[in-house]
Amino acid sequence: MEITFTPIGLIHSPFFKLEEMPIQPAGAFGVQGTIDLYPDYVAGLQDLDGFSHIYVIYHLHKSNGWKPRVIPFLDKQERGVFATRAPHRPNPIGLSVLKIESINSSQISVSNVDILDGTPLLDIKPYVPQFDSAQDIRIGWIADTIQQVKNVRTDRRFSG
Amino acid sequence: MEITFTPIGLIHSPFFKLEEMPIQPAGAFGVQGTIDLYPDYVAGLQDLDGFSHIYVIYHLHKSNGWKPRVIPFLDKQERGVFATRAPHRPNPIGLSVLKIESINSSQISVSNVDILDGTPLLDIKPYVPQFDSAQDIRIGWIADTIQQVKNVRTDRRFSG
Repeated sequence: MEITFTPIGLIHSPFFKLEEMPIQPAGAFGVQGTIDLYPDYVAGLQDLDGFSHIYVIYHLHKSNGWKPRVIPFLDKQERGVFATRAPHRPNPIGLSVLKIESINSSQISVSNVDILDGTPLLDIKPYVPQFDSAQDIRIGWIADTIQQVKNVRTDRRFSG
Repeated sequence: MEITFTPIGLIHSPFFKLEEMPIQPAGAFGVQGTIDLYPDYVAGLQDLDGFSHIYVIYHLHKSNGWKPRVIPFLDKQERGVFATRAPHRPNPIGLSVLKIESINSSQISVSNVDILDGTPLLDIKPYVPQFDSAQDIRIGWIADTIQQVKNVRTDRRFSG
């Protein structure tokens, strides 16, 4: 069974190639970008200006294929793909928490952008940590390398 | 341009109809469910047992159609759909932060489940708050009703 989605806009950023990108919003602090919604969807932005952050869900459109185990950017050994944020996934869906700088008609100016320029947008949701009820959080293998998230950049390993 | 995804498993929960469901994980504290991965994807679960929580991304498969403005469960007035988590969205993609209770081969036992039984799973990502770099968070119109998230249940407004 297949599920079909349609892009609702495009994400623009300073990143025009898959290498040398920040690997998460935490590594893209202050990096500016824009989300340009297609006209059919602009009315859905009402009330969003009261929120500081959004979940941005997008199509990792340059990701081709996947493997059950990958060597993620933060590590030197293979990990199960679902224990990583690697872009080569069975369904190449990206998720970033971005900061809203301003909203102007069809365009949202955002910061902390770790997304490739021209990426198709699938959904925007308000970021409400109180909804998640997550406490006593453990972050597995990433605990050993989390300090590197601000400095590590992408390389060619998922460009193929 | 259309984007096609394929379910990687199914989510099972105690919720068999769209009404009387919790509206977010914070309203589903302790509610147990399971994520059953299809065989092709089970090897991707390696290393996930070190994490306490996951992002679960799924197809809101009972959602038909959308409108740019909706009256969300937490409110009595219309809001732009992208300023809500309402299921009637241009691309009906659901996002929940669930707690991992245990992992057994192809099955993840989870809690805080606010998801309909039989929902198609699209992706699992480790929940790593340090990746998001979100500070000084404002939650817009939801600030007035956030206290209700634990008690409000769904009704028929998005069942059509």
